[in-house]
Amino acid sequence: MTDMNRRSFMGTLALAGLTPSALPFGPPARVGPGAGAGLQQAQPPADVTRSLARWIVSARPEDLPENVRKEARRTLVNYVGCAVGGSSHPTLDITVAALTPFGGPAQASVLGRSERTDIFNAALLNGIASHVLDYDDTHLKTVIHPGGPVLSAILALAEYQPVNGRDFLHAMVLGVETACRIGNAVYPAHYDRGWHITGTTGPFGAAAAAGKLLGLSEQQMVWALGIAAAQPVGLREMFGTMTKSFHPGRAAQNGLLAAVLASKGFTSTDVGLEGKSAWVNVLSDKRDWTEITGQLDERWEILLNTYKPFPCGVVLHPTIDACLQLREQHGLKPSDIERIDLSVHPLVLELTGKKTPQTGLEGKFSVYFTAAVAMVAGAVGVKQFSDEMVRDPVVVALRDRVVATVDPSIREEQVRAVVMLKDGKRLEKFIEHVLSSVENPLSDRQLEGKFLDLADGVLPPERARALLSLCWRIEELPGAAEVAAAARA
Amino acid sequence: MTDMNRRSFMGTLALAGLTPSALPFGPPARVGPGAGAGLQQAQPPADVTRSLARWIVSARPEDLPENVRKEARRTLVNYVGCAVGGSSHPTLDITVAALTPFGGPAQASVLGRSERTDIFNAALLNGIASHVLDYDDTHLKTVIHPGGPVLSAILALAEYQPVNGRDFLHAMVLGVETACRIGNAVYPAHYDRGWHITGTTGPFGAAAAAGKLLGLSEQQMVWALGIAAAQPVGLREMFGTMTKSFHPGRAAQNGLLAAVLASKGFTSTDVGLEGKSAWVNVLSDKRDWTEITGQLDERWEILLNTYKPFPCGVVLHPTIDACLQLREQHGLKPSDIERIDLSVHPLVLELTGKKTPQTGLEGKFSVYFTAAVAMVAGAVGVKQFSDEMVRDPVVVALRDRVVATVDPSIREEQVRAVVMLKDGKRLEKFIEHVLSSVENPLSDRQLEGKFLDLADGVLPPERARALLSLCWRIEELPGAAEVAAAARA
Repeated sequence: MTDMNRRSFMGTLALAGLTPSALPFGPPARVGPGAGAGLQQAQPPADVTRSLARWIVSARPEDLPENVRKEARRTLVNYVGCAVGGSSHPTLDITVAALTPFGGPAQASVLGRSERTDIFNAALLNGIASHVLDYDDTHLKTVIHPGGPVLSAILALAEYQPVNGRDFLHAMVLGVETACRIGNAVYPAHYDRGWHITGTTGPFGAAAAAGKLLGLSEQQMVWALGIAAAQPVGLREMFGTMTKSFHPGRAAQNGLLAAVLASKGFTSTDVGLEGKSAWVNVLSDKRDWTEITGQLDERWEILLNTYKPFPCGVVLHPTIDACLQLREQHGLKPSDIERIDLSVHPLVLELTGKKTPQTGLEGKFSVYFTAAVAMVAGAVGVKQFSDEMVRDPVVVALRDRVVATVDPSIREEQVRAVVMLKDGKRLEKFIEHVLSSVENPLSDRQLEGKFLDLADGVLPPERARALLSLCWRIEELPGAAEVAAAARA
Repeated sequence: MTDMNRRSFMGTLALAGLTPSALPFGPPARVGPGAGAGLQQAQPPADVTRSLARWIVSARPEDLPENVRKEARRTLVNYVGCAVGGSSHPTLDITVAALTPFGGPAQASVLGRSERTDIFNAALLNGIASHVLDYDDTHLKTVIHPGGPVLSAILALAEYQPVNGRDFLHAMVLGVETACRIGNAVYPAHYDRGWHITGTTGPFGAAAAAGKLLGLSEQQMVWALGIAAAQPVGLREMFGTMTKSFHPGRAAQNGLLAAVLASKGFTSTDVGLEGKSAWVNVLSDKRDWTEITGQLDERWEILLNTYKPFPCGVVLHPTIDACLQLREQHGLKPSDIERIDLSVHPLVLELTGKKTPQTGLEGKFSVYFTAAVAMVAGAVGVKQFSDEMVRDPVVVALRDRVVATVDPSIREEQVRAVVMLKDGKRLEKFIEHVLSSVENPLSDRQLEGKFLDLADGVLPPERARALLSLCWRIEELPGAAEVAAAARA
C-alpha cells in the first residue's frame, strides 16, 4: 500500500449497505455504524477484548451470510493470486536465502515456490509475497490489507493441523473482521501518526483466525489477542523499501505465534485492547470502541474489501481505465496518437507526477508512463511495471506526449482523457466511477483474469486454473491445505 | 520490570561520571550530557540512523575503556545467572512446549535447559528466561533491561557463527549503548505512554550487536536498524503476565532477524529513527536526538547498568537490606521479635502494600511479607518468593506484626526499620543508601553470590562455578559460545 492509495474510493462502502459519504477528496470520512455517537469515546465499554474473544470463539460457520462468504472467497482468490505472483520477487529470494539455514520442519508451503518450511516461516514468506506487488486487497475504510496477515497465518496452519475448507473460510472471516474492526476504532489517527495499519492490526486478525482453528477457549483467545497486542509491526517510513512487505508477513507470524502460545496456556492481560497501557490507548489518539464490539454478526467489514485491478496506487486507476477503454473502443495504435490530455484530481500529480521514470518501480509513480503503457500494451499488470517497459522507446515516445492537468471538478475516482490523433480526430473518455468502485466492482471474471495474469510464468496455465478453481470451491474442500499444496511450484 | 521499579535510584548515575541530581522522588530527572540544550529538539540532526550505524560498524574492541569492559562483564554475569535461574520457570516450560514442534536445527542452547534449537527460538527463550524472575539488569536512567535482548541475540548467534570472546563483549557493549541511547532520547514520554521500553528499544540493541558480529556494512547496519524499528515489542499493560517476559525475548529475536535479513541485502529506510513516520516520532512525544548520536565513544550508558540484589521491585530493597542487616548484627530469631516498624517512602505502600499475599508472585507486592521473610530466612532470593514461603506459618505470624508507615522525609533509596523485641529491647537501622545504589554498588562478590544462588538447583555447584568463571574470563575465550555450552543443563 503506497501513500497514494491512502485516500481511497469511498463508493465501495455501499457494498456493505452503507451510504457512501459525499466527501470530495481527502481521507475517507467516518461512515457507517459506530461513527458519530461512538467517535472519540474516552471510556471503553467493559470487556472490549473479552467480548471480541467471546464472539470469535462462539461464532459458527453456518451463521455466515452468503454475501459474506462470497466476499471471503473473492478475498481468498485475490490473496492466493498475489502471493503466487509475488513469489519470485527479489524480496522473497532474499528472505528465503536469509532464513533457510534456521527454518524448522517442512510443514507448510511457500506459495508459488518449491520450498517448504515450518509454519511460522511460511506465514512470514507468504505474507511478504502477498503484499510485495502492491496488488493485494484493501479494506477501503481503513486502508488495511487484511488478507495477507490473516490468510498467511491460517493457510500455513492448515497444512500442519488439518481443517476443512468451510471452517477455514469462517476463521478467515473472523480474522478479517477482527483486524478491520480494530482498525476502524483507531483510523485515521493511528495511520496519521505513522503506523502501517496493516502490520499493526494484522497480528490481531491472524491471532483470531489461527486461534479459532486451534480451538482456543475464551480465556485463551483473550490471551492470544493480548500477546498480539504486544507485537505491532510497521511504520509508514518503510514505504518504498522491502520492509513494507515485511510488515504483513511478520504480522501473520506474530498473530500465529500469539495463538499457538495461548493454546498452551501462555498468559497475557485480559484487556489487551482497552487497558490504560494497552494497544488502543498506546497506539492511537482516537478510540471508537463501538467499532470493535458493536453490531457483531450484523456489520461485516469484509464486505468493504476490494481488489485492485492494476498493481499500482489507486489514484492511477481512472487514467488506466480510460486509456484501456479508448484503446479498445477505437483500435488505437501508438503511432496514431499525437497527444493524450488528462484532466486529473490533484492527488494524481502530487503522488504520481514523475515525468521520466527510469525503473519499473518508478513507473508506478508516473501518470505519464502509466497512461502510455496502457495505450501501448493494452493491459496494465505486473509485467507492464518492468524496467524494460519503462525504457521501451515506443512507450517513452508516447509518454512524452502525455499532458496531465489538475482539474478541481474531477473527483478521485474520475478522470477525463482526451486523445488527439495525428489525423486531427479527437477522442474523449470520461471515467465517472473507476473500475473497482462500488458502482463498478471488479467482477469475478476480472478477478480471475487478475489471478491468471499473476500466476502466469509461475505455474503452468492448467495448474493455475486448477488452483483458481480450488479457491472458489474452498468451502467444499475436505482439507483447506489442498490450496497450499496446489500453489506449490 | 514492575511498575515499582519505575522511579529508580539516581545515585548510580555518578558511576558514569555524571552528577546525580538532587531530585527527591518521582521519575528520574534528565541528567548528564544531552539534557538541557538537546531536550525536546524538534528537528533531528542529519543522518541520525546513519551516524549511529557508522559508529557501530567502525567501532573497535581495542578502544573500549577498561571500566566499560568491566561493567560489560558484570552485565554478562548477571544475564547468564538470570537466564539460568529463570530456565525452569513455568513460562519457559510453556514456551518450549509450544514452539518445539516448529523449531529449526539444534544450533543454539537454551541456558539452564537441555534443549537446543535454532538461533531465533533460542534468542526468544533465553530472553524470556533472563527477565522472568524480575532479577535482570537495569539501566536506571530509562529503566531499560538491556542485557536480555542484546545478549540473548548474540549468544545464540555465537553458537552458529563462531566469535572470540573479546569481539563478543564488544558487540554486546555496542548493543547496550544503542538500546539505551535510543531509550534516553524518548524517556520518559515513551514509557509514560505505555510502552515497555525494554521491548521497544531491545530490537535496536539486538540488531546492532548481532549486525556487528555479522560484519554488516554501514548501509546494511542502517537497514538492520530500520527493520528493527518496524518491530517494537511490549506494552506495560502486560505487566503481571507471562507476556511481560515475552517482550525482551521477542525483542532479541526481532533484532537478530533484522540483522540477518540486512546481511543478505533486505532493504529498509535510511531514516528508521529520525524519519517523519519513523520510530522516534511515532512512538514518542519527546525527542532528544543528541542522546542518540552525541558523545559517541565518550559517554557510555553501560556504566549506568545496575544489578538487583533481590528479585523484586527496587522499592522493597531498602527494607530487605535493613532487615537482613539487623538479623545478622543481632542474631535475631523470629521468636525474639514483637514487632517490626518500617518508616517508608510513599511508593512502598502504593506499590507493595498487599497485607496478606497468597502466592509467591503476590509476595513481591507485599512489604509486610518481604520484611518478614528476610528476617526469617536471612536471605531474599528466588526461593523466598515461593508459594510455600508465603504460606509458611512462622513467616505469616511475623508478617502480621510488621507495621509500615509513610514518612515524607524518607527517600526512595532509604528506610528506617525499628525492631521491638519481646524482651523490650529496641533495635533500629536506618538505610541511607540501599545496596546497589552508587554509594553502595553490588560488589563483584555479591554478584557472584547472586549468580550462584540463581544457578542453584539448575546446575551442579561445580558447573555453576565453572560457568561463572567463563563469564568473568569472556575476553580471553577463543569462542564465546563456550559460555552457552557451559550453561546447558
